[in-house]
Amino acid sequence: MNRVDLNCDLGESFGVYKIGMDEEILPLISSANIACGYHASDPLVMDKTVRLAMESGCGIGAHPGFPDLMGFGRRKMSVSEEEAKAYVIYQIGALDAFCKKYKVKMNHVKAHGAIYNMASSNYRIARAICEAVKEVNPDLILMGLANSQLLKAAQDIGLAAANEVFADRAYNDDGSLVDRSLPNAMITDEDLAVERVVRMVKEGLVKTVTGKDIKIQVDSICVHGDGEKALDFVKKIRKAFQMGKIEIKRLDNLKWIVAKD
Amino acid sequence: MNRVDLNCDLGESFGVYKIGMDEEILPLISSANIACGYHASDPLVMDKTVRLAMESGCGIGAHPGFPDLMGFGRRKMSVSEEEAKAYVIYQIGALDAFCKKYKVKMNHVKAHGAIYNMASSNYRIARAICEAVKEVNPDLILMGLANSQLLKAAQDIGLAAANEVFADRAYNDDGSLVDRSLPNAMITDEDLAVERVVRMVKEGLVKTVTGKDIKIQVDSICVHGDGEKALDFVKKIRKAFQMGKIEIKRLDNLKWIVAKD
Amino acid sequence: MNRVDLNCDLGESFGVYKIGMDEEILPLISSANIACGYHASDPLVMDKTVRLAMESGCGIGAHPGFPDLMGFGRRKMSVSEEEAKAYVIYQIGALDAFCKKYKVKMNHVKAHGAIYNMASSNYRIARAICEAVKEVNPDLILMGLANSQLLKAAQDIGLAAANEVFADRAYNDDGSLVDRSLPNAMITDEDLAVERVVRMVKEGLVKTVTGKDIKIQVDSICVHGDGEKALDFVKKIRKAFQMGKIEIKRLDNLKWIVAKD
Amino acid sequence: MNRVDLNCDLGESFGVYKIGMDEEILPLISSANIACGYHASDPLVMDKTVRLAMESGCGIGAHPGFPDLMGFGRRKMSVSEEEAKAYVIYQIGALDAFCKKYKVKMNHVKAHGAIYNMASSNYRIARAICEAVKEVNPDLILMGLANSQLLKAAQDIGLAAANEVFADRAYNDDGSLVDRSLPNAMITDEDLAVERVVRMVKEGLVKTVTGKDIKIQVDSICVHGDGEKALDFVKKIRKAFQMGKIEIKRLDNLKWIVAKD
Repeated sequence: MNRVDLNCDLGESFGVYKIGMDEEILPLISSANIACGYHASDPLVMDKTVRLAMESGCGIGAHPGFPDLMGFGRRKMSVSEEEAKAYVIYQIGALDAFCKKYKVKMNHVKAHGAIYNMASSNYRIARAICEAVKEVNPDLILMGLANSQLLKAAQDIGLAAANEVFADRAYNDDGSLVDRSLPNAMITDEDLAVERVVRMVKEGLVKTVTGKDIKIQVDSICVHGDGEKALDFVKKIRKAFQMGKIEIKRLDNLKWIVAKD
Repeated sequence: MNRVDLNCDLGESFGVYKIGMDEEILPLISSANIACGYHASDPLVMDKTVRLAMESGCGIGAHPGFPDLMGFGRRKMSVSEEEAKAYVIYQIGALDAFCKKYKVKMNHVKAHGAIYNMASSNYRIARAICEAVKEVNPDLILMGLANSQLLKAAQDIGLAAANEVFADRAYNDDGSLVDRSLPNAMITDEDLAVERVVRMVKEGLVKTVTGKDIKIQVDSICVHGDGEKALDFVKKIRKAFQMGKIEIKRLDNLKWIVAKD
Repeated sequence: MNRVDLNCDLGESFGVYKIGMDEEILPLISSANIACGYHASDPLVMDKTVRLAMESGCGIGAHPGFPDLMGFGRRKMSVSEEEAKAYVIYQIGALDAFCKKYKVKMNHVKAHGAIYNMASSNYRIARAICEAVKEVNPDLILMGLANSQLLKAAQDIGLAAANEVFADRAYNDDGSLVDRSLPNAMITDEDLAVERVVRMVKEGLVKTVTGKDIKIQVDSICVHGDGEKALDFVKKIRKAFQMGKIEIKRLDNLKWIVAKD
Repeated sequence: MNRVDLNCDLGESFGVYKIGMDEEILPLISSANIACGYHASDPLVMDKTVRLAMESGCGIGAHPGFPDLMGFGRRKMSVSEEEAKAYVIYQIGALDAFCKKYKVKMNHVKAHGAIYNMASSNYRIARAICEAVKEVNPDLILMGLANSQLLKAAQDIGLAAANEVFADRAYNDDGSLVDRSLPNAMITDEDLAVERVVRMVKEGLVKTVTGKDIKIQVDSICVHGDGEKALDFVKKIRKAFQMGKIEIKRLDNLKWIVAKD
């Protein structure tokens, strides 16, 4: 039987500002990527989100981003490797303290927004992030874009890593995502998106923008929880998985591959 | 033989901004209270400071403050107990991640500036801080003003706590510090200050502003590292201790024990 | 015929975070208090909000707050008078630059949240705020709680000032607001609230929590725009005003009283 | 007789953090670029710096940067043109309010650090900055790297602009600065640096890294005030100017005029 993880970014409210439907999405996913106070969130939100994620049984992950609340961590910043590494260490630690409060284990780390994107193609930033994760806790799993420099860096330093795919994004022939600025970057047809995801999980293949089939390994699928439409799409995926005999499992229960060999 | 800890706030630089003489003060003290990115510091500074403190053999403590970089955490903020608690949890965790990187243990937590002062007299804030410390790691030692609500709260919840005194501050008859806005708040005569500290450690007594002797328990003495004059004063204290057979020991080697009995 | 201004705090979104129903409330009010990037807002939000307010014909005011985005400027901070003054100057200037871009005049300044509340009872903070306003532009109108230290300070330095009342708040015998922590602080009966406002405007009287009638001058009424219910309440007030022959006029068209005499 | 402006970035302290020797450099320069609270500074620092600059008789300019205090505005951020424009408007306005307090005119705007560098080569960001300046106050002078996109954009929209050169930097054949990461980017020989500046002012020529002479227009020379060494270098330049009959004049007294023809 096929198994896969469903992950979602959440805990991204801040102060009086509310964002996301965290309580609604949590029962539908298996891994929660929780913001750590840099691109979003604050200590009260982190406390609440860790508690909610724990109660839902989800795997808990840190979701570190750039120190750019005004830009929600979505703007590239020309940070050094030392800065990238220190920012990730800081944020993992901050979230981990709330995990300790609730006596729940942190499972994984997934970088957010611009730092995730930069690390996907920039090996040095990718490696800085992987080192940060490993040095804080070598048992953490790095979640990164399938085929990206993040996965490569994790493998190079012997850090367990999970290949993430996006249900709603088109792929290039080299396995990278089609740039969002391009017209065909998004898969807007929900049925097609679901079908693609099922195929990725079951066959390890995805059709690229040029029509070619390429191999893709899928350990986790990123879904969204920021509206009714997003929630409905997750339910569609879950239904398709049920029919397709794909089991949704937390990362730490998966047979996804670690470097080390 | 008498024993006491010498502690100092450090790691308070931020970005391009340098403050404090961390490398000079570290060899002279036994406990370093390291800022955690709220009232001061950033991840690069925290990384460096934890490393320096570890290399010096100092005990490492988190020094959480209010999220008020512009005011250096010195301005009272009317936070709720939940906010105070969550802010302390967040900052302990952030610093702890750097301790993990360097495979060094965090020993203690000392609140900074306005939150320290508020908690000294406000039991609810004091208790929130103590709960934060205990819930993240029950082995941590809370450092707080001798005779203050911080010590009382720690005792109430069974958290180890260290009584801190200030060499350069005058005391009221009830054991509280004379308010800084009053003319006689500071002990400006260095020899007198040293003499008072020695007496506090050896006899457990201090003369108050009214001339009365009161009991005071001393586990740790707060010193400063923000200039040549401050460093010289620490050296004077150390010399007086040597002559007075007072040994400087890290908190975790001291025999103080609050609570638990 | 009676005249009064209706004011509302808006432009309080930040980055990806949306708050308030600015476009819906603007046509219903005569003065917009626009956040300036300290307790809320960012330059993009300020740009958009000034444009919307200008298009609606509302009077535009700066709404400066404490530098506490995490607490939305609602937490008291023990700032000095110099700090309070400088923070208000900074924020007025920042908003004014967007007014210049749109070639629209800034009419008034209303402090936000905790700094407004502190200044209502603390003359020194009130005076610092009034001086800030006057020194940047002596033609600006200070909007402050009726009967408060803000109004007194404005009068003392010769700054035009508008008395603000709250439709949904109970008053003490001395004209101050009943503290929110008390059970009877809010007027929850909407019809009663509307009736009280009409009486304040027409008769200059309000019944206090002890049942006594006291004098109150009303230049502007604060309303909210943060939900359908709030909008409906504003519509109710407007309807009552229409029936009661009370005209809604921008502050700069009112006969509100200046100091100077 | 030749004339030129000497400019320096200052007012970059923040809270308890002090940086720069503002009081020492001010008497030596003719234009002060004052930080506006984004990459550095706070309202108290801005107040003090505007006052000091006014007292020294310097021309006052806004020195807007990226909202990145932790990185001192030196890290490139992938902002949109709308963001760049709004950030500059905000910061000009904030500083201008302090100018109004002191009844002194703002003369110019010079972007800081990464946004200055980005705008030097990116026309769209350059144009966004120039539009910001012009829309807030069309009488302001834009100060930008000689030969850069900033100067071109200013000319395109009819904004007065001043060509800035760096005494301590090497130039490429196309008039751009040699990248700092390259070994020959800096002119470390002070006498050579002074000689180059004098020649730039008097002959309008500079020798590039390839040994070729290229034309360069000089309206203002950037100097530093962050240490005794920097101050000494400025004194050397001033002495050489005295001997070379070059008069130091504020930008608003110079005869450069871009655009408008």
